[in-house]
Amino acid sequence: MNFASDNTAPVEPAILDAIAKASSGYARGYGDDDWTKAVERRLAEIFEHDVAVFLVPTGTAANALALAHVSPPWGVVFCHAESHVATDECGAVEFFGGGLKLVGLNGNGAKIEPATLKAALAAYGGHRPHQMIPSALSITQASEAGTVYRTDEIAALADIAHARAMAVHMDGARFANALVRLNASPAQMTWRCGIDVLSLGATKGGALAAEAVVVFDPARAIYLGERRKRAGHLLSKHRFIAAQFLAYLAEDRWLTLARRANGKADRLTEQLTAVGLKPAWPVEANLVFVTMPRALHAKLQAAGASYYVRKSESLNLDSDTVLVRLVTSFATTDDDIARFVALCKKS
Amino acid sequence: MNFASDNTAPVEPAILDAIAKASSGYARGYGDDDWTKAVERRLAEIFEHDVAVFLVPTGTAANALALAHVSPPWGVVFCHAESHVATDECGAVEFFGGGLKLVGLNGNGAKIEPATLKAALAAYGGHRPHQMIPSALSITQASEAGTVYRTDEIAALADIAHARAMAVHMDGARFANALVRLNASPAQMTWRCGIDVLSLGATKGGALAAEAVVVFDPARAIYLGERRKRAGHLLSKHRFIAAQFLAYLAEDRWLTLARRANGKADRLTEQLTAVGLKPAWPVEANLVFVTMPRALHAKLQAAGASYYVRKSESLNLDSDTVLVRLVTSFATTDDDIARFVALCKKS
Amino acid sequence: MNFASDNTAPVEPAILDAIAKASSGYARGYGDDDWTKAVERRLAEIFEHDVAVFLVPTGTAANALALAHVSPPWGVVFCHAESHVATDECGAVEFFGGGLKLVGLNGNGAKIEPATLKAALAAYGGHRPHQMIPSALSITQASEAGTVYRTDEIAALADIAHARAMAVHMDGARFANALVRLNASPAQMTWRCGIDVLSLGATKGGALAAEAVVVFDPARAIYLGERRKRAGHLLSKHRFIAAQFLAYLAEDRWLTLARRANGKADRLTEQLTAVGLKPAWPVEANLVFVTMPRALHAKLQAAGASYYVRKSESLNLDSDTVLVRLVTSFATTDDDIARFVALCKKS
Amino acid sequence: MNFASDNTAPVEPAILDAIAKASSGYARGYGDDDWTKAVERRLAEIFEHDVAVFLVPTGTAANALALAHVSPPWGVVFCHAESHVATDECGAVEFFGGGLKLVGLNGNGAKIEPATLKAALAAYGGHRPHQMIPSALSITQASEAGTVYRTDEIAALADIAHARAMAVHMDGARFANALVRLNASPAQMTWRCGIDVLSLGATKGGALAAEAVVVFDPARAIYLGERRKRAGHLLSKHRFIAAQFLAYLAEDRWLTLARRANGKADRLTEQLTAVGLKPAWPVEANLVFVTMPRALHAKLQAAGASYYVRKSESLNLDSDTVLVRLVTSFATTDDDIARFVALCKKS
Repeated sequence: MNFASDNTAPVEPAILDAIAKASSGYARGYGDDDWTKAVERRLAEIFEHDVAVFLVPTGTAANALALAHVSPPWGVVFCHAESHVATDECGAVEFFGGGLKLVGLNGNGAKIEPATLKAALAAYGGHRPHQMIPSALSITQASEAGTVYRTDEIAALADIAHARAMAVHMDGARFANALVRLNASPAQMTWRCGIDVLSLGATKGGALAAEAVVVFDPARAIYLGERRKRAGHLLSKHRFIAAQFLAYLAEDRWLTLARRANGKADRLTEQLTAVGLKPAWPVEANLVFVTMPRALHAKLQAAGASYYVRKSESLNLDSDTVLVRLVTSFATTDDDIARFVALCKKS
Repeated sequence: MNFASDNTAPVEPAILDAIAKASSGYARGYGDDDWTKAVERRLAEIFEHDVAVFLVPTGTAANALALAHVSPPWGVVFCHAESHVATDECGAVEFFGGGLKLVGLNGNGAKIEPATLKAALAAYGGHRPHQMIPSALSITQASEAGTVYRTDEIAALADIAHARAMAVHMDGARFANALVRLNASPAQMTWRCGIDVLSLGATKGGALAAEAVVVFDPARAIYLGERRKRAGHLLSKHRFIAAQFLAYLAEDRWLTLARRANGKADRLTEQLTAVGLKPAWPVEANLVFVTMPRALHAKLQAAGASYYVRKSESLNLDSDTVLVRLVTSFATTDDDIARFVALCKKS
Repeated sequence: MNFASDNTAPVEPAILDAIAKASSGYARGYGDDDWTKAVERRLAEIFEHDVAVFLVPTGTAANALALAHVSPPWGVVFCHAESHVATDECGAVEFFGGGLKLVGLNGNGAKIEPATLKAALAAYGGHRPHQMIPSALSITQASEAGTVYRTDEIAALADIAHARAMAVHMDGARFANALVRLNASPAQMTWRCGIDVLSLGATKGGALAAEAVVVFDPARAIYLGERRKRAGHLLSKHRFIAAQFLAYLAEDRWLTLARRANGKADRLTEQLTAVGLKPAWPVEANLVFVTMPRALHAKLQAAGASYYVRKSESLNLDSDTVLVRLVTSFATTDDDIARFVALCKKS
Repeated sequence: MNFASDNTAPVEPAILDAIAKASSGYARGYGDDDWTKAVERRLAEIFEHDVAVFLVPTGTAANALALAHVSPPWGVVFCHAESHVATDECGAVEFFGGGLKLVGLNGNGAKIEPATLKAALAAYGGHRPHQMIPSALSITQASEAGTVYRTDEIAALADIAHARAMAVHMDGARFANALVRLNASPAQMTWRCGIDVLSLGATKGGALAAEAVVVFDPARAIYLGERRKRAGHLLSKHRFIAAQFLAYLAEDRWLTLARRANGKADRLTEQLTAVGLKPAWPVEANLVFVTMPRALHAKLQAAGASYYVRKSESLNLDSDTVLVRLVTSFATTDDDIARFVALCKKS
């Protein structure tokens, strides 16, 4: 009953197999290999756009490199107050960004609403050079609450940001989960609605350690290679990170795996709802948040269920109630779900 | 005939196998798993010392994290002028270190001599706060020229550094290659001769992407976890980097693989010498440097041989001569060597 | 009618005179002069404590150096959401601090309440190394709203911070204004209630450009000299910044000047209240905040009154009302006040 | 007999007077005042060019802000190995520049020769992204050895730099001293021979604390205001730094003062030469370097002479000889010189 994170899953077998297959003969290091070139071509096809691609081993690296590249040190990056960059990356964006500022915005279901962004920007009125300057918006798709921005919602936010000459970044650690839920194309969910730079995750979806910074205006990516290198994020045996991505993207595997993970979340939601545990927010990706009595939480823990307790500004919980985050992945089994729900039922 | 780098090699089969074996079931992320704990125990045994261990995917990350952790931003890190940190990491140490200064020292065979270090330190005489303050010494073992520091040579350098309250770091991207050549124990080549922090490489030795920062005084490692995280170098599916290390260290595999790589370098050296191409420096690890006529270099390239041309301050080459770096690895074949030497012979 | 800021005032004549007097003969540069040594002694006497003192030309420099020195890059510095460090220094603390994070807390009258700090800290529960670590509290005395922390209020906040091993910093750009209002001794308002490091301002009080970082545990100030130098804040003709401080502190001039500025604020408050403009917060230093109809604001501006319009989260103003900040200084005249109030009266 | 530095001098009386005159009435802070606007206009006239001007209190700040603004963090700034930025600013450029690298070049008389720069650049051959990228050249005029670049020498260096898309910076802490020696116009010695950004010093020439970053392409100065502010270098009572500059530049005072300082250096040189102490390098500004027996040095020290002993790579001194730096300023008296030389004579 492991619902702690999608990163507790193993490597998906086909991706593991691709790593093994790539491990034959010599290949030039640092990205000057055939696998890497193939990933670049494949991503251009998938996104129907010229792209500059930088593979890195972690999502934190992808986010921090992307945001530092589009924001000067005196820039303000707006994000959700509960976003991963704001709460879980130990200040990586601030470090890579030379001391830029992250401003966390509130919003239900870990989504930013256009009016909230507008109001926040209104406080930045050109009191130069005393005030820092709005430089970027970062949204998470799917969000940390398992919700998904609609493409018109993204476009509305991006328009506001672009009107202030800000860059728009998407943290897509769970990009595929959102994509298959919206039934949108990668282009529709990114550059067509105003995304300038994307952190595209494969690790949570089934890879070993593979994320990509995707820049939709390659001219803007100049020197991002230097930035990655001096951050220690250019892998020497680069073919292996590229091979993971190739396998992840091949034969729509990334979409299939995301549909499987989402499906498990739906199943879990349905069964929890049936025993009286309704999700706190719409389940639109592979995360299910439910509030439950502390006693049930204790019982689940005792039975070996693994998950995290979270807090949310937008929920007003009494001290007897906890907010529980349940994450499914391609590796989640129906049996895991059944056992977990059974424990909830009997309570 | 690929002698470009030991990172052009694939993953050693047993290590690849260990990755596959680890890919089963759930495991907690970010290093809170059994594989990681086992690596930590194993390294303590191997080094016969308490250690704090931080696994990271690249050598650049290991070096930059280690040096930034032992040096303040106003510190001067002394290293060889041809060292990897000085020439090939795009300023990673300066970036991680908040703008510290690397001072490159000259020395034959990419090794620093005690007298050179002493002379360099003499210029730092307490002109505070105008002058930066010597904070660390970084030596590379085996060196970028394929030479190896003897343990007494390390001790002599470390004594000089410690007398100035400087930390001593070893870039051990090719640690095992040096170790087996010296026939020393890991303890003898590190903390017993004054090494405070080690970048221990496994990637060049056969892993996919696995390096470790090893701190011999664990109390000194406080907050290095935060430093790694905010640099984006804490892998989420951490069991896989740990599994690589476990397999690398198991059954003396790391030593066996290093002996194999060194043996190929020896064989290459012997055969090249026989055809009149004597190495520029003693071949003590898995790197062979030879000077050759430009015409032979052209011929080798045309025949598909892969290697890098290097420069060295300590060699005075005429314009018709090039310095060639040949790197062997566990994957180098005798056939590769034979074909390469045959081309040299016929010239 | 200049109420824009206390930094629109000229240099107080006695301080100007001290600069002129110091300008005779040679003096060693960079703080190795008699004036500087005298300031250090004088501050130790005034604070009844050993202190390490670092003179700098701006308050931003003092705050950023002080906070960067007591907080690591992965640290969180708590301050009021309307504090100068958070809103008006263009990210200086983040820059000097290597990408640390400022977290702004709300509170009426720009003061932080103990319960608010406690609640904020409760969210930092040791989720290491993902979450940044609380490292410092910065309070402003007098506050940006012209209010003053009582010594027991400071002690209550400092106790909470110290219990979490955080340092406590006071931004004392208007330190003297608070001091004379409380009728406290410098010791009472600082280290006796838990302040570890103080930015002590003289510029707003009458100097040309002179601020001091005062560290109450001199051992903790090690390398702060290097930090200041590499920030470009060590003046070469240092005697002149020291001379300003000496004159500012001599014969209780700093207290006299602060009493005069506070007195003008009291007078302004009294007269504004008499014409129906009551202050938004208690007037405890030399700042007066009043809300007024937009029409009156326009009339005052047209008449040449100089001041800033501010916003505050804690006031809920309709669109016809503006919040006006009026700052008095040692140079404010009764005539300025009379003319300003006359304009308000007639409205 | 104070020859320690030109910063041991007091403030020149006319400049001191200008400070006092500016101290009357209110003025808007942070550079929005008439004095500042007048300085900007005056510098545009003097340089016969549009300029963006940023006043700061120290030369270290001017250099670090200027170089950080024209060089990315992965940039290499070439300078002389004995330049102030490399040896005496405690890593300010590296700090402001986010971890960029300074590469010190050798050259007699603290001047860089074109061939040396070319040779250094040849080592940067596009090994991207492993190697840092040449981004700027910084030359010091007058140099730290008291020598002066001819305008054609500057142009030769600037051409080499510009051919590599590097910016060219001049550290003009002693700009006026060089200018009057060359009998060149400010335009001739800067943008006309390829200088992009200038640190223009007034402090050593007679001001209290006043330096300017002068950018010859104002479009390139965008956000330099933010950079200065977040470094704590925007003075609040800004009229006083501007007033210093105005007085310094008025009535050719800066040139007159520089001629006086240079004249004292010439007189000192002449008299020292007459007693057998010939300068080590041509005396072209207000610095005189002589080598002398250690015994004479001891005698001078005992007699109260104040100066610094320096080292130079380009001189090969035996252990009985010291290299002495003697700096004159507008405040140096003939009596100082006479007493000093008399002591040398008698030896």
